[in-house]
Amino acid sequence: MAYKSDIQIAREAQKKPIQEIGAKLGIGSDDLLPYGHDKAKVSQSFINGVQGNQTGKLILVTAINPTPAGEGKTTTTVGLGDGLNRIGKKAAVCIREASLGPNFGMKGGAAGGGYAQIVPMEDMNLHFTGDFHAITSAHSLLSAMIDNHIYWGNELEIDVRRVVWRRVVDMNDRALRQITASLGGVANGFPREAGFDITVASEVMAILCLAKDLQDLQQRLGDMIVAYRRDRTPVFCRDIKADGAMTVLLKDAMQPNLVQTLENNPAFVHGGPFANIAHGCNSVIATSTALKIADYVVTEAGFGADLGAEKFLNIKCRKAGLAPDCVVLVATVRAMKMNGGVAKADLGAENVEAVNQGCPNLGRHISNLKSFGVPVVVAINHFVTDTEAEVQAVKDYVATQGSEAIVSQHWEHGSKGSEALATRVAEIADSGVSAFAPLYPDEMPLADKVQTICKRIYHADEALMDQKIRDQLKLWEEQGYGHLPVCMAKTQYSFSTDPTLRGAPTGHSVPVREVRLSAGAGFIVVVCGEIMTMPGLPRVPSAENIHLNEDGQIEGLF
Amino acid sequence: MAYKSDIQIAREAQKKPIQEIGAKLGIGSDDLLPYGHDKAKVSQSFINGVQGNQTGKLILVTAINPTPAGEGKTTTTVGLGDGLNRIGKKAAVCIREASLGPNFGMKGGAAGGGYAQIVPMEDMNLHFTGDFHAITSAHSLLSAMIDNHIYWGNELEIDVRRVVWRRVVDMNDRALRQITASLGGVANGFPREAGFDITVASEVMAILCLAKDLQDLQQRLGDMIVAYRRDRTPVFCRDIKADGAMTVLLKDAMQPNLVQTLENNPAFVHGGPFANIAHGCNSVIATSTALKIADYVVTEAGFGADLGAEKFLNIKCRKAGLAPDCVVLVATVRAMKMNGGVAKADLGAENVEAVNQGCPNLGRHISNLKSFGVPVVVAINHFVTDTEAEVQAVKDYVATQGSEAIVSQHWEHGSKGSEALATRVAEIADSGVSAFAPLYPDEMPLADKVQTICKRIYHADEALMDQKIRDQLKLWEEQGYGHLPVCMAKTQYSFSTDPTLRGAPTGHSVPVREVRLSAGAGFIVVVCGEIMTMPGLPRVPSAENIHLNEDGQIEGLF
Repeated sequence: MAYKSDIQIAREAQKKPIQEIGAKLGIGSDDLLPYGHDKAKVSQSFINGVQGNQTGKLILVTAINPTPAGEGKTTTTVGLGDGLNRIGKKAAVCIREASLGPNFGMKGGAAGGGYAQIVPMEDMNLHFTGDFHAITSAHSLLSAMIDNHIYWGNELEIDVRRVVWRRVVDMNDRALRQITASLGGVANGFPREAGFDITVASEVMAILCLAKDLQDLQQRLGDMIVAYRRDRTPVFCRDIKADGAMTVLLKDAMQPNLVQTLENNPAFVHGGPFANIAHGCNSVIATSTALKIADYVVTEAGFGADLGAEKFLNIKCRKAGLAPDCVVLVATVRAMKMNGGVAKADLGAENVEAVNQGCPNLGRHISNLKSFGVPVVVAINHFVTDTEAEVQAVKDYVATQGSEAIVSQHWEHGSKGSEALATRVAEIADSGVSAFAPLYPDEMPLADKVQTICKRIYHADEALMDQKIRDQLKLWEEQGYGHLPVCMAKTQYSFSTDPTLRGAPTGHSVPVREVRLSAGAGFIVVVCGEIMTMPGLPRVPSAENIHLNEDGQIEGLF
Repeated sequence: MAYKSDIQIAREAQKKPIQEIGAKLGIGSDDLLPYGHDKAKVSQSFINGVQGNQTGKLILVTAINPTPAGEGKTTTTVGLGDGLNRIGKKAAVCIREASLGPNFGMKGGAAGGGYAQIVPMEDMNLHFTGDFHAITSAHSLLSAMIDNHIYWGNELEIDVRRVVWRRVVDMNDRALRQITASLGGVANGFPREAGFDITVASEVMAILCLAKDLQDLQQRLGDMIVAYRRDRTPVFCRDIKADGAMTVLLKDAMQPNLVQTLENNPAFVHGGPFANIAHGCNSVIATSTALKIADYVVTEAGFGADLGAEKFLNIKCRKAGLAPDCVVLVATVRAMKMNGGVAKADLGAENVEAVNQGCPNLGRHISNLKSFGVPVVVAINHFVTDTEAEVQAVKDYVATQGSEAIVSQHWEHGSKGSEALATRVAEIADSGVSAFAPLYPDEMPLADKVQTICKRIYHADEALMDQKIRDQLKLWEEQGYGHLPVCMAKTQYSFSTDPTLRGAPTGHSVPVREVRLSAGAGFIVVVCGEIMTMPGLPRVPSAENIHLNEDGQIEGLF
C-alpha cells in the first residue's frame, strides 16, 4: 500500500474557518484577530476575561533521546489531542512555532505528520503571524540603541569590549557569527567585535514565552543585562530605555495563535525558544489560556525528556505555576532498535533483540519523570513496518518499569488510531494521582542545582565546574540571582555530553564549560559542550529547490 | 480654538469592518485575507479576475520641494480621495507603507493628518501585514546563500572583494553600515568587508513594487546582480538559485493591503521603496488593481515633483503602462514663505511678500509637470493660520503660470473641505486632456537620459560625468542594459544638488558621483551627492519614549 506524503495530506485538509475553531473553545469572533481565514490571534481582552475559569488538565508529551529514526513527538501530541476530542473531551493542543531560517537549510518542519498534523502547514513554516519577525525587530531595536548610546557619548560608561547583547536574524547565516561592527570612521561609531545569533536564540524569545502578560513582559525585558562597565557592574536594557518600545513591538506577538488540526480541533501554536540555551517550550500565555478554556491541554517539550521535560518541569512549570496531570513519553520501535545498535538502513528488518537492548534508554526516562511525582504513560508511535513481536517487547519492558505502554496509530489513522491512548491518558489525568514537584527548591545554591540535575537526571557521577565557574555562580548569588533555576545546554542525543553514547550510560561526568545569566528570562544557562546559536546552511541548501509550482503551491519546503 | 492631535482623531475613528470597505470595490470577503478586523490583503485570484475590467482614472499627487514647514502630500492624497467619494465617485487611494526602523528615531509617520488620515495608524507604523519583514527575510536569505556558496567552494568563482549584495535590517543601525564578516576561523567562512542597508533600500523592495505578478517577480529577482568575478563578469541571483525561495517568501507580500480612511473609504497601502536610490512609489500591483475596481485612483510619489513625480512618470508609468489623467501639485502658504526666506519660527505672521518670493519654486514644478503632457492643478493645503491675502497671492501666481490653484481644507474638515478640489480634479481627469509621454525614449543613450533630466527638470546647465562613469554607462549599454530608465538619487530639498538652494535656481551643474545598476528592478541609479542607505538614530531616539499606556494604547510613536 502506498502512503501519501505529509504535504499531500495537508493539502487535502478540509479546513474550517478559524471562527468555527475558536467557537469550540468559546472564543467569539470579535476576540479572534484573523490572519487570513485559517489563522487567528486570541485577543488580550479575552485572555484577561477567562482568568477566573477553572483550570483544565495538563498533559505533557515528551520523548526518549532523539535518533535519526524519528520519534514523532509532535505527531503524537497532535494525535493525542485529536483522540481526546474523539472520545468527547474538550481538548486543545499547544505547540511551538517553527523558526524560518532553518527551513531553508534542511527540508522543513511539518507540524506533525501523517493524519496527525496541524494546518496550514506552509504558513507555519514561513512567516505565520509574524511573531518571530516582531521578536527580531524588538531585539534589533535594542541592539541599535546600545551602539547609538555609545556613539552619542556613552553616558552609561559601557565597556565596548563587554557588550553581551548580540544581534539576531531569523536566517542560518554563519558569516554573521562573528563580525567587526562600526567600521568606516567617525560617522559610524566605535569599532568593536560583535555577532549575530538566530532569532530563536534571543533572550527576547525566552521572555515572550515565559511572560504572564504585557506588564510582566516589559519588566523582564527591562531586567535583561546588555553590557558591563569596566568595573563589571551590569548595564540593563532598562538603562538604555528600550523596554517600552520593545513591548510595543511585541504587543501583538504576545497574543497566542490559534490554528487547527486536520480533524478541525483547536491548536495553539505560540512561541519557540531555543531548546538548548533556553527552555524550549511553547508560551506560558498560550498554555495557561488553553487551560482556562479547554478541559484537557496537550503540550510538548523540546528534545528528549532529559533536556526538554526537565526544563518544562523545572523552569516553565515552576515559573508559571503549572503542574502536569499526566506525562506521555513517546517511543518508537525503530528508535529502540537504533538505541540497541541497529543502523538506520537496517531498521526495516524485525529485530526483537535490538529492541530489548535499546529499551534501557526508555526505562531511564520513565524513572526520571517519576521522580517529579508525575504519572507516566509510554506511547508507542506506531510505524507500519513495526512487527507485533517488537511492539510486545517494548510493552513487556515498560511493564517491568512499573509503567504501561500503549500503541498509537494516529499517523496512519488519525484520532481513530489514538483512541486507546487518549482514553487512558484522560483517566490518569482525571484520577488526580499526579503529585508534581520540581526537582530542586528555589533556595538551593546554584552549583547544587547543577549537580542535582547531572546526578538525578543524567545519572552522571558529577558535574565538573572549575573555580572560575564556581566563583561566577557565587557572585550571581550575591547579586540576588541565586533563586533562579538553571537551564542546561547539552547534547540532546545522550544522557551524557557525548552524543554517540546511546542507551542509559553511567560513570560519566558532565564538564561545565560556561555559565550565562539570562536575567530577564530568569534562568542561568549552564553550557555543557558546544552550543551553536547561529547555524549555517548545508552545501546544497533546501532553498535551492523551494519554489512556487504552476498552481501557486509551495514545493520543496517539506 | 484647540485642535485635536492626529493620534486623538485617529483613535476616535469609527472604523468599519474591512469586509465592508472591500465590498465598496466589489471585493468579496473570500477574496480578502484579513489581518485583524481592519486590515486585509486582496487575494491574487481576485486580482487575476479583474484584469479584463475597464481602467479608471489615475490621479497623481506630488508637491513642491519639501520644507520643514510641511506640505501635507499624503494628507492631500487622502483628503482628495475622500472628496471624490463625497461627490459620488467611486474612488480609492494608493499610498506607500511606512518603514519601521525610522519610527524609532524621529516621531513616526502618521498616514495623513487631521481629518484626512488612513487608519489603523498604529499598525501601519509598526509591523502592518508583515510585508517589509518578508522583504527582509527574502533579502537575508540571498545574503546567506551567497556567503554559503563561497564557504562550500565558490564554484561560481565570486570575487569576495566584489560582492555587491549588501545585507539589510529594518532598523536605523549605523553600527552595521560597514562591517567585517565571516571572522572566527574556518567554520565561519572567508572574512570579507560587508555592510547593512535599511530594508526599504533593498532592490527586493523596488522589485516588489514594480513586478506585475509572481512570475515577473521571480524573473526580476533572478536578474539581480549579486557579485562579480575577477574578470568582472556578473553573478546573478539566479546563479545562486535563490530566486525561487525568495518568491515563496514574498508570495503573501505581493498581495496589496486594503485599509480605510477616517471616512471609511478604501485605501491601498502597499510597498515602500526608498525614494532616492529607488523610484519611491507604491506598488504597481496595488495601483493597477485599484484602477480596475475604482473609477478614480489617487496616488502619490515621494519627495518633491522634481524627484518623486519624475520617477513616477519616467519609471513607474513607463514600466507599468500607466498614464496619469491629472496631476495635483501640493503647496502650502507656509512652504511658500519658507522658500521666500522666512524662518520656521516666523511662519505665524502674515507675509505676502515672502509668499510671492517663494512662488517661483511652485512655478517651475508646474512647467516641469506640463512638459510630460499632463494637466496640473495646484492644491493649496490650507493651514488655519493662512491669511486670505496670502492664499490669494498663491492663486494669482499660479494663474500667471497658466494653471489653477484650489484651496483645500481636508485637514480641518475632511471631505467637506476637499469637495471643490475633488470636483475640479474629476472634471479634468474625465476630460481626456492628458497626453502623457515620458520625458525620454527607451532607446536614448544612458548618459543622454541623465542630461535630459538635469537640464529639463533640474534646469541645470549640465550633468558632470567623469570618464569612469561614462565608460561604465557605455559598458552597460553593450551588455544590454541601455534601454533602462535612470533613477536619480539627489537631495529632495532643491532643484540643485545643494540642499540649501531653495526657489528655482539656475546656472548650477549636477555632479554625478556614482552609477549603480539595479538589473532586477530595471533601472540605473545615478547618484548625485551623498546618499545614506542606512540611517542612524538621533541622540535621544523617540524609542526612549514609546510605550504602552495603562489602557494598552501606544504612546510616543506619533
